[in-house]
Amino acid sequence: MQRKSLGNTQCPIARSLDRVGEWWSILILRDAFYGLTRFDQFEQSLGISPNMLTRRLNALVEGGLLERRQYCAHPPRFEYVLTERGTDFRPVMLALLAWGNKHFAPEGESVTLVNKLTGLVADPVLVDRANGQPVSGPDYEMRAGPAAGERIHQRIAAARRAGR
Amino acid sequence: MQRKSLGNTQCPIARSLDRVGEWWSILILRDAFYGLTRFDQFEQSLGISPNMLTRRLNALVEGGLLERRQYCAHPPRFEYVLTERGTDFRPVMLALLAWGNKHFAPEGESVTLVNKLTGLVADPVLVDRANGQPVSGPDYEMRAGPAAGERIHQRIAAARRAGR
Repeated sequence: MQRKSLGNTQCPIARSLDRVGEWWSILILRDAFYGLTRFDQFEQSLGISPNMLTRRLNALVEGGLLERRQYCAHPPRFEYVLTERGTDFRPVMLALLAWGNKHFAPEGESVTLVNKLTGLVADPVLVDRANGQPVSGPDYEMRAGPAAGERIHQRIAAARRAGR
Repeated sequence: MQRKSLGNTQCPIARSLDRVGEWWSILILRDAFYGLTRFDQFEQSLGISPNMLTRRLNALVEGGLLERRQYCAHPPRFEYVLTERGTDFRPVMLALLAWGNKHFAPEGESVTLVNKLTGLVADPVLVDRANGQPVSGPDYEMRAGPAAGERIHQRIAAARRAGR
């Protein structure tokens, strides 16, 4: 399926999606956070065709989220390890986890995030590091940043007119 | 493009992606957070074909993230408004924004999240509501929840063997 690239947009959300906005990619990252590194591990976990898995792994390597490392010389074997950029995706993944648990787990939670020290299930909330306030609240709004072009300014002006 | 549905999986991340794991959908949600509600507003903002936009809006309505409301009787006109489930997606979006700003904005930030009271740019971090600790840290791990089936138990056991 041909798709329009989002890479030439200024929007940081669109740029992020351009790297991971395909659900196989996000599930590969999920498994990487679980500790999987080898092609056959991803293949088994995801039930994905080898062709598709190769394409998605290559895209994640090109996007700088995974690094391909040789771990065996004879025969040559490679593993896929999260880079810093890939590791930094973890909050997005955990926010997705929390949202899925709240809205799509009518039979109860299947996966939980637990504090190892207390054994208590975590309740992830996105806050501002400066003051601990939830950034989803009414005190926060999107604004054009220093590098914003005309399109971003228009979008934010439209949001302001809509009363957000 | 035919795709395998993720709806029958127990994984809450996969279930979430089944509702939004297509980048047009996430960009529509982004624009809904900006305050857009009407078909022509989304169409103009996204540069998307009317057919594709109709499909994605219908999917978001079926998934319970948007509600379709009639705002004019003659002629009949409809708007698309975030539901509670859709609104709860906001932390995922803001985590994507922060990740995009950190990794894909070499020329500087185009969109920032700002505290309206202080005027300062927010630094969004995902923490445990109970203690304010970042949940991406080493004290937190994924565990099987009460509704976990065999597949989830296997995945988490594999993660433990991998040392996560």
